[in-house]
Amino acid sequence: MTNPVRTLYWVGDADGRLVLIDQSRLRSDLVELDCRDVPTVCEAIRSLRVRGAPAIGIAAAYGVCLGVQEVRSSDESTFFARLDEVTDSLASSRPTAVNLFWAIDRMKSRAAESRGKISPIEIADELLTEAHAIYEEDRQTCRAIGRHGAELLADGDGILTHCNAGALATADYGTALAVIFAAVEAGKNLHVYACETRPLLQGARLTTWELLQRDITTTLICDSAAAQVLAEGRVRAVITGADRITTCGDVANKIGTYSLALVAAAHEIPFYVAAPTSTFDLTLESGDQIPIEQRATEEITHGFGRQTAPDGVNVYNPAFDVTPARLITAIVCERGLIRPVTPERIAEVVGGQSD
Amino acid sequence: MTNPVRTLYWVGDADGRLVLIDQSRLRSDLVELDCRDVPTVCEAIRSLRVRGAPAIGIAAAYGVCLGVQEVRSSDESTFFARLDEVTDSLASSRPTAVNLFWAIDRMKSRAAESRGKISPIEIADELLTEAHAIYEEDRQTCRAIGRHGAELLADGDGILTHCNAGALATADYGTALAVIFAAVEAGKNLHVYACETRPLLQGARLTTWELLQRDITTTLICDSAAAQVLAEGRVRAVITGADRITTCGDVANKIGTYSLALVAAAHEIPFYVAAPTSTFDLTLESGDQIPIEQRATEEITHGFGRQTAPDGVNVYNPAFDVTPARLITAIVCERGLIRPVTPERIAEVVGGQSD
Repeated sequence: MTNPVRTLYWVGDADGRLVLIDQSRLRSDLVELDCRDVPTVCEAIRSLRVRGAPAIGIAAAYGVCLGVQEVRSSDESTFFARLDEVTDSLASSRPTAVNLFWAIDRMKSRAAESRGKISPIEIADELLTEAHAIYEEDRQTCRAIGRHGAELLADGDGILTHCNAGALATADYGTALAVIFAAVEAGKNLHVYACETRPLLQGARLTTWELLQRDITTTLICDSAAAQVLAEGRVRAVITGADRITTCGDVANKIGTYSLALVAAAHEIPFYVAAPTSTFDLTLESGDQIPIEQRATEEITHGFGRQTAPDGVNVYNPAFDVTPARLITAIVCERGLIRPVTPERIAEVVGGQSD
Repeated sequence: MTNPVRTLYWVGDADGRLVLIDQSRLRSDLVELDCRDVPTVCEAIRSLRVRGAPAIGIAAAYGVCLGVQEVRSSDESTFFARLDEVTDSLASSRPTAVNLFWAIDRMKSRAAESRGKISPIEIADELLTEAHAIYEEDRQTCRAIGRHGAELLADGDGILTHCNAGALATADYGTALAVIFAAVEAGKNLHVYACETRPLLQGARLTTWELLQRDITTTLICDSAAAQVLAEGRVRAVITGADRITTCGDVANKIGTYSLALVAAAHEIPFYVAAPTSTFDLTLESGDQIPIEQRATEEITHGFGRQTAPDGVNVYNPAFDVTPARLITAIVCERGLIRPVTPERIAEVVGGQSD
């Protein structure tokens, strides 16, 4: 099955540009945004025009390429000063998804390795090659996650997912949704329940859109209805993506994920997380060390073109929550299943403490 | 503390009219709706212009008064035929809140007792007296619930509530919010976290509005953020209203309540339900016998003046869920606390099986 969605892609050579679907305008418009400089990429990440941990990482990698275009013909110290400026700027766009920092570090390492050996113009070419590699690896990763995860889902299952961990969050067909897509490709009939995912409705706008494009039976629910849906026996597994995973297996993901994990545990329904190994932060042991992004009041009070709460009301709007490892049945990554979710098994599959 | 909100009230004598705040237009407009006939009352209940189990019961009682206005001067059989027609119509407006049926039954019983003894015109007067009694009793009930429940909340507590169980749901200052208001009246400082309550945002639109009017510290959150808010230690108790309670203590309430109860249990935080005894359905033992209202797809897909999900997506939109008795720490009713929530204790406080 080819992926019908091109979430983001690079056009041209090192002088080229990044093109991405403006996801803030889905479901009403499928509009692509041309990114020709770093501020445009940062704004796109900050405003969730591009979102999903893997896609953010890829956008940042290409953002680095855009940032060094103007200094390709400069001397080395100017080039590297600009590289630092660009990577600092991209790194400040969103705080929680670790794939952003992972991709930026990888780009910086590639440049550092070549420093003093080749010209800035050649380093810029290498950076584009590296960004393309990150992109291509993510495509392979999505397929591998799908392959490993598909065995977890049985024909006829109802599956519940939250937010969007599909093609729109990656370079190919997703993480959590890759598992669903791969199971469907393997001939299994699934019925997917998509939580709408307040406040920005990634489930309602993006996940249902992807599922309908692939003719998968899809039912949209309010986030708060998930417990009742599980109580009614409609769902056999819950699967979500992740924005950051610690060495003990605690998972930061879209707000509402932790609630779903508690609800799944209460109903003895397996709770799966699908994410590439680049989502693991090997410098953090426990979930309470993960920085949680706080977002604007207006996302809740003025969500859809209309004010829906009184002036002056306080709002608490964390974009993510942390699900403790003990609630997670398995993590699906490109290298296979991490089950049980223990520090030992994570070290075995992903690697040990990095520092 | 007087109640600053007049949710609904009758104007005039038996020839008068019902006036209610059109809650579908809050938070943007405080508009009263004149109800001069039964279809207007039914539409107001169906469209949630008046909502909240106790307020629905009161509106239905006054709706009966409106319905018999045109047959006050008719013969007895015409009067009672019309009464049946009117009560059937009102009873079909919404299925879950039992207070609706309780109020209608009470009005019918009052009329039946007087049949053959006094004229239809006098029976109509008695029906208005009965509706006024239901209204006044609800006012007393709110105050008693507040009095009994206030002891459950301590100075400095964070309290989480869902939907709106305040003045706008009753004839006085609410059920769940009555407990909060009474605790504040007793000098306790509370910080209330209000879940916005998708799809119709009663928490965002109505509960925050009531709390801000009373200068109570209020923070609005997305429903899915409640688990994270509890995990962060911000909340010491969860309290909600109820639409129907069975003899074993299972509670039907606004969708999302069950999820909150599971989340509260996981954090060992007490979960309270506040409701008048008229919310108990003594004909039902178990929560799975409660009819759950299914509402329109558009509440989720077109919530705020803008389409937020693709055309043709399936939607599952139950308006209520069922929280099992084992998750409820105590039920606060006008007669005191039901704790533990067991059939025996419910029978003791509320009465036994009615049939």
